Amino acid sequence: MSWQRPDGRKPDQLRPISFERDFTRFATSSVLARCGDTQVLCTVTIQPGVPKFLQNSGRGWLSAEYRMLPGATPQRQSRELMKLSGRTQEIQLLIGRSLRASLDLEALPERTILVDADVLQADAGTRTTSITGGFVALATALDKLVERGELERSPIRHPVAAVSVGLLDGKPFLDLKYEEDVAAEVDFNVVMTADLEFVEVQGTAEGKTYNRLQLDGLLDLASRGIEELLVAQRRAIES
Amino acid sequence: MSWQRPDGRKPDQLRPISFERDFTRFATSSVLARCGDTQVLCTVTIQPGVPKFLQNSGRGWLSAEYRMLPGATPQRQSRELMKLSGRTQEIQLLIGRSLRASLDLEALPERTILVDADVLQADAGTRTTSITGGFVALATALDKLVERGELERSPIRHPVAAVSVGLLDGKPFLDLKYEEDVAAEVDFNVVMTADLEFVEVQGTAEGKTYNRLQLDGLLDLASRGIEELLVAQRRAIES
Amino acid sequence: MSWQRPDGRKPDQLRPISFERDFTRFATSSVLARCGDTQVLCTVTIQPGVPKFLQNSGRGWLSAEYRMLPGATPQRQSRELMKLSGRTQEIQLLIGRSLRASLDLEALPERTILVDADVLQADAGTRTTSITGGFVALATALDKLVERGELERSPIRHPVAAVSVGLLDGKPFLDLKYEEDVAAEVDFNVVMTADLEFVEVQGTAEGKTYNRLQLDGLLDLASRGIEELLVAQRRAIES
Amino acid sequence: MSWQRPDGRKPDQLRPISFERDFTRFATSSVLARCGDTQVLCTVTIQPGVPKFLQNSGRGWLSAEYRMLPGATPQRQSRELMKLSGRTQEIQLLIGRSLRASLDLEALPERTILVDADVLQADAGTRTTSITGGFVALATALDKLVERGELERSPIRHPVAAVSVGLLDGKPFLDLKYEEDVAAEVDFNVVMTADLEFVEVQGTAEGKTYNRLQLDGLLDLASRGIEELLVAQRRAIES
Amino acid sequence: MSWQRPDGRKPDQLRPISFERDFTRFATSSVLARCGDTQVLCTVTIQPGVPKFLQNSGRGWLSAEYRMLPGATPQRQSRELMKLSGRTQEIQLLIGRSLRASLDLEALPERTILVDADVLQADAGTRTTSITGGFVALATALDKLVERGELERSPIRHPVAAVSVGLLDGKPFLDLKYEEDVAAEVDFNVVMTADLEFVEVQGTAEGKTYNRLQLDGLLDLASRGIEELLVAQRRAIES
Amino acid sequence: MSWQRPDGRKPDQLRPISFERDFTRFATSSVLARCGDTQVLCTVTIQPGVPKFLQNSGRGWLSAEYRMLPGATPQRQSRELMKLSGRTQEIQLLIGRSLRASLDLEALPERTILVDADVLQADAGTRTTSITGGFVALATALDKLVERGELERSPIRHPVAAVSVGLLDGKPFLDLKYEEDVAAEVDFNVVMTADLEFVEVQGTAEGKTYNRLQLDGLLDLASRGIEELLVAQRRAIES
Repeated sequence: MSWQRPDGRKPDQLRPISFERDFTRFATSSVLARCGDTQVLCTVTIQPGVPKFLQNSGRGWLSAEYRMLPGATPQRQSRELMKLSGRTQEIQLLIGRSLRASLDLEALPERTILVDADVLQADAGTRTTSITGGFVALATALDKLVERGELERSPIRHPVAAVSVGLLDGKPFLDLKYEEDVAAEVDFNVVMTADLEFVEVQGTAEGKTYNRLQLDGLLDLASRGIEELLVAQRRAIES
Repeated sequence: MSWQRPDGRKPDQLRPISFERDFTRFATSSVLARCGDTQVLCTVTIQPGVPKFLQNSGRGWLSAEYRMLPGATPQRQSRELMKLSGRTQEIQLLIGRSLRASLDLEALPERTILVDADVLQADAGTRTTSITGGFVALATALDKLVERGELERSPIRHPVAAVSVGLLDGKPFLDLKYEEDVAAEVDFNVVMTADLEFVEVQGTAEGKTYNRLQLDGLLDLASRGIEELLVAQRRAIES
Repeated sequence: MSWQRPDGRKPDQLRPISFERDFTRFATSSVLARCGDTQVLCTVTIQPGVPKFLQNSGRGWLSAEYRMLPGATPQRQSRELMKLSGRTQEIQLLIGRSLRASLDLEALPERTILVDADVLQADAGTRTTSITGGFVALATALDKLVERGELERSPIRHPVAAVSVGLLDGKPFLDLKYEEDVAAEVDFNVVMTADLEFVEVQGTAEGKTYNRLQLDGLLDLASRGIEELLVAQRRAIES
Repeated sequence: MSWQRPDGRKPDQLRPISFERDFTRFATSSVLARCGDTQVLCTVTIQPGVPKFLQNSGRGWLSAEYRMLPGATPQRQSRELMKLSGRTQEIQLLIGRSLRASLDLEALPERTILVDADVLQADAGTRTTSITGGFVALATALDKLVERGELERSPIRHPVAAVSVGLLDGKPFLDLKYEEDVAAEVDFNVVMTADLEFVEVQGTAEGKTYNRLQLDGLLDLASRGIEELLVAQRRAIES
Repeated sequence: MSWQRPDGRKPDQLRPISFERDFTRFATSSVLARCGDTQVLCTVTIQPGVPKFLQNSGRGWLSAEYRMLPGATPQRQSRELMKLSGRTQEIQLLIGRSLRASLDLEALPERTILVDADVLQADAGTRTTSITGGFVALATALDKLVERGELERSPIRHPVAAVSVGLLDGKPFLDLKYEEDVAAEVDFNVVMTADLEFVEVQGTAEGKTYNRLQLDGLLDLASRGIEELLVAQRRAIES
Repeated sequence: MSWQRPDGRKPDQLRPISFERDFTRFATSSVLARCGDTQVLCTVTIQPGVPKFLQNSGRGWLSAEYRMLPGATPQRQSRELMKLSGRTQEIQLLIGRSLRASLDLEALPERTILVDADVLQADAGTRTTSITGGFVALATALDKLVERGELERSPIRHPVAAVSVGLLDGKPFLDLKYEEDVAAEVDFNVVMTADLEFVEVQGTAEGKTYNRLQLDGLLDLASRGIEELLVAQRRAIES
């Protein structure tokens, strides 16, 4: 018997996605990204200076922070103090790496872009929503800098978006929500550019394994989902 | 010469206030409280059990956590890791104490209410907005528990609201925004109940002092502001 | 029925107060302040340099640290490691703010005064005793610097003292000791200058509230207590 | 022009691999795994009890710790205190997940296997060597428990091994050493079972992207390398 | 040329020592131990229960904490937060071990004695003064428990005292003060019982070495100093 | 009845000792020191610069880090995170002090030598093996610097070695292994130079005491053991 999606979606159907720009007004840009019930507030700040290893390189940098508000999940989760969990750090690094892939860092001399992804509500897919929404906030912030004359041209090379896919009862499904994420045998996070090149593929099985054919099916599905997300991003940025 | 308010308000005029209930859906209740440009997301979770010092007392407890998102201010602020600043801890304790004053804790046997106040945007008055908005979230959450039959009656004894007042060029002003908060010689945070009794008065001067007459004028002004806030809260809760 | 003070004092009577100067010899000044059974060792050190936000401002700074020795209370209290409690940080900030109010920081170019308040024995009122005794240590240290020719004149603008008052059975009492502090419905800490202007008013009710008339009575009482403390300080400094 | 390997290997050639069993004698098993100049000491300890989330489940657990000795690299690296880096935590979780995939945890009632992977010398591939060598130590430890009669049968379901592959000048190479790891545009870590099913695929590009064809080539190469590693593991375990 | 003591003492002469009992009143006992300008407040608290490794052993335990107040030295020293220095931990362990050597822990069933040694003023010899003064506080506390009927007999087996000795210009000196401690080539801390048996000998040379003859001379001198200290302790306890 | 050594050694007999040089290849030098079943990997790195207190002094510095791998003991020991135990810090300081005693730090201008002692297997005597093996690694590293022309001459003044001795059933024994260390009434660690001068003597009794005659016997025995260790070191360095 095959998996029935709790919200009645087809296997290759994304959840409704929206990007609310200028959700707050004090950061350079701010986007409330919604992917179904998952809500991530992505804010972008641009600061002078770069980390030590880039000083005098003429290049800029981007890094990301990711955190979940305690009330984001049905079971309240304690805030992380003292040390971040491995999960949180892993996600922060992934968001940073993915968004850097969209940039020509040489066109951003000696500045650091900070992307804060704060999850207000979590129904799985928080890391991929952070990347997809973070890109909208990033492009918006860079456009503002160009408008203000602080940059000659936007350092964006190509848009970047991310989606999750997974195997449920041995079949591939796109954009898992919480109950699906928990039930999935295999869980992939895929980050791609507008040229449909890969930035990152992370496929994890807990207690199960998967064969090459299944891997191929998952990547095909991810690729189709990302095409749709890229359209939604473009629409939000150009609005 | 006397202080001109940057947003043209009269000295005794509050900023526009609003409470958006059910802003997120997974916590017991969630309110996005806006006071001018200050935005605080207040979520309430109710858990079984109480802290050690109350075990077997038949009473419940309420505690609060307060945090500012990094992008909430024009200058991005680093997240607090390792240890909370004195300011953050002081505010958390104040929010908790103020909201407990609204409750009959004996009517909440062996449960703990957690109020999370996350500042999405900060234009001063974040602690008072956390208390005023936190009360709306608290009353909403307790009403839901009564509806679901988990409590016989709401343990609310009397509504609680909070406001800031301050001396600028020696005169009292209500509900300071950021530029005013920085310029004020003296800064008061006042928490009161619907009976206009005080829960907390905190008056701080940095580098200045104030006399008894000025203190009296500040408390009069705070009291009038709180009356208006109580009306706005009631309207939100009954809507 | 009204509250009977455990040590037979009248409602408006302070505990015996004394200031033992030069209790230790290696710090710039050191005062063992005793207020009834509460004993606080206040030591003052003066260092070159100021915190970053004051560099090149021509002004000096003062900050305070407060800690309780584990054996200061009948129940031994663990030392605070890793992070200070909110209470400790709040008190440190209060002591610093209060003592800075006594100084003309422009007359102290590019130096930092550190006031350490270590509670050897605690019978309530430790924060107010730290301020009142801390002022004696501060004035003594600055006089020594003038004597040694390191400063032209003492930067003291006006003496500062602090006292607690509280409501017990609805009536105001001055300078609460431990059993009274625990029983009080409302607890105020008041810091004033020699001109009887306020530096800080902090009035907290845990589970109770208080009206405007009661607030007025408490401030009147605090004001009378502070006048007596200022006399005792002067006597100690001039001895 | 195409990449010349610094040690003259062919693109699809592994470095020499060896497993020295019983390198230390006090842990249940201990294997010094060498892959070229990379040396990882893998020790296995088996303890009664399981983490909370598995209590009374009748199942066992395995978790891993990974750390690099300061002298393992040409530039001494400081020990991680206070908090582990995201990299270290990510690797620990990967090692644990990969080795759990080799086990039937139901055949290990209420015990926890701890695998410590301490890198004595690092020439890239430390995480894959930790998994491949960790499996040899794990199988050895479980065989000892069967011999001693503490377990009826070994809970091993299928061997697991791991290898890195990467794109250099656009072409796929197997088992990168340090200079190659740094130069690679794309870096994959692949974990597979003896049935050549995948446990984990992690493909990361820093500043570059890769297309589907390249991804396919990399997985083919990884798969061939893992077949060889599985033979070497078997030989070590049966010796 | 030989070393001239800055305070004119003979090589084998102790500094004036005194023990002020009941310096504070809330701990079980409290002694202000003065050894020249070194002042250590030793307080003793006795709590029910023992550390885990002693549970159900019928034995008691003693442990010590040592800390220096920031104003104890001419250069203010920062408080140790987050982690104790190796020096502080080493001293705490030494004080605990030394005072345990004075006790029959079987006569103290299931209780833990906590000795807090807080250095109010430091002129070298703080660890030895903590032990010598700590013993006076310990004996006093146990006598009180016997008086109150909480113990049948005092578990003290034999008094314990400690002293420092050192080589200056190659000659042995007793009870070094700060300038001597800094100048000494070799520094010994010696802890002995009333039977003149050793509990601990710690002899450290920084940058120098010492021969067997010198070691013998230092131990002879320490032994004579400890005999005097034991007399002073006895007098204080019996007073 | 007198103590029977578990490995049949005579009271004054060392365990077999060996030093495997170049155990790893990336640090400046690396020695696997084995003393019976105790195995310590000592690696030496030499870095430019010195700690602050030595800047512009023309002198160099040496410091040591000591850590035990979790699998080094029959009972797995958790890694020390957040804060090092007092034991670990004490040992690190001892190793550093002992190895500095072998050097003329003036002949090492503005460099810092870092000695990492990582215990792979622990059968008691890990701190003394770290010192004895650390010296072999240190001498080797400095010889390499002389060979490469980075130093004119080796700053070694005299070799240094360390050994433990203890009282068992009242009699002295050399080089205790684990079962003996646990059973010993008194435990000494002794560090000496090639001239048989002392660098450090640390004699600790837990719950027991020892007299002067016993102390003398222990030091005689340590001295004989160290003479043998110095021969083994010389042989390793010259090989």
